[in-house]
Amino acid sequence: MTEIQKNVESASETYSSSFNQGHLALPPAKKYLVLTCMDARIDPARAFGISLGDAHVIRNAGASAQDALRSIIISEQLLGTQEIVLVKHTGCGMLTFKNEDAYGIVEKTLGSEASAELKSRGLDFLAFPKLEDAVKQDVEYLKNTKLVPDSVNISGWVYEVETGKTVRVV
Amino acid sequence: MTEIQKNVESASETYSSSFNQGHLALPPAKKYLVLTCMDARIDPARAFGISLGDAHVIRNAGASAQDALRSIIISEQLLGTQEIVLVKHTGCGMLTFKNEDAYGIVEKTLGSEASAELKSRGLDFLAFPKLEDAVKQDVEYLKNTKLVPDSVNISGWVYEVETGKTVRVV
Repeated sequence: MTEIQKNVESASETYSSSFNQGHLALPPAKKYLVLTCMDARIDPARAFGISLGDAHVIRNAGASAQDALRSIIISEQLLGTQEIVLVKHTGCGMLTFKNEDAYGIVEKTLGSEASAELKSRGLDFLAFPKLEDAVKQDVEYLKNTKLVPDSVNISGWVYEVETGKTVRVV
Repeated sequence: MTEIQKNVESASETYSSSFNQGHLALPPAKKYLVLTCMDARIDPARAFGISLGDAHVIRNAGASAQDALRSIIISEQLLGTQEIVLVKHTGCGMLTFKNEDAYGIVEKTLGSEASAELKSRGLDFLAFPKLEDAVKQDVEYLKNTKLVPDSVNISGWVYEVETGKTVRVV
């Protein structure tokens, strides 16, 4: 067992010993979803004020709307959420590279078999060069797809990892 | 401004007013990533013991490894994580439907244009019928892809939404 696995077990013991939220229902009580980045410096529950049971939280590299589409459709169509809060953040890793860089790193560190698998998948890493533009573009993407109905309210924000503030962009 | 947007702004004010973690680095300090479900009843930071800055947290519908692959590659190859903690959970919505159900609901509620868009994307919703089997299968998936090197330690767990416990499966 690794130190990280031991830490999960000890956190589980502590958390479950005072846990009293076993009654919460599957559909989010406040009918919204938050889409944000996987970045280690973001604690969505505290930074964005999400109480347990209130909202779906989708996280991926860069808070990509395109990458999250499967989860968003499930959230909206099967579990009744009606609002999307999309939050990218300052200092995001996605601002620092391009597809060709990632493809090059995989080839160099993982070798030719991995590189061939990556190419055969045609994976787009969905990096972006400008933060606020990316927020606007992802909100537009969600407004344009027919898979998110017009009745869904969508807002776009930037979380500042330096200050802990979340600022509305669109 | 919606109630949910007001809530983000007020949470931001509270959180940032006592925020003192602006120094944290981009790469996760403890070099691991947690992959779990978007379910509203999961608070990964508290349930799994993740301190701010320590780990990437990827969340999607069902904690799907396949859906998370883009983010996992970025986490491992560009940001130096070396261990994966994969956590699915009891009562998951992904246990309750199949692709054909989701396709039917989209057609019924969003209409034929949305249905055509969904079909043209060929989207797989990646639902699963059995929880522990799905944990094992996703761990296998990550062990089998060349895009995750053998040196990465991968464990699979189930979080119990009824008790707040996280139990190791594999």
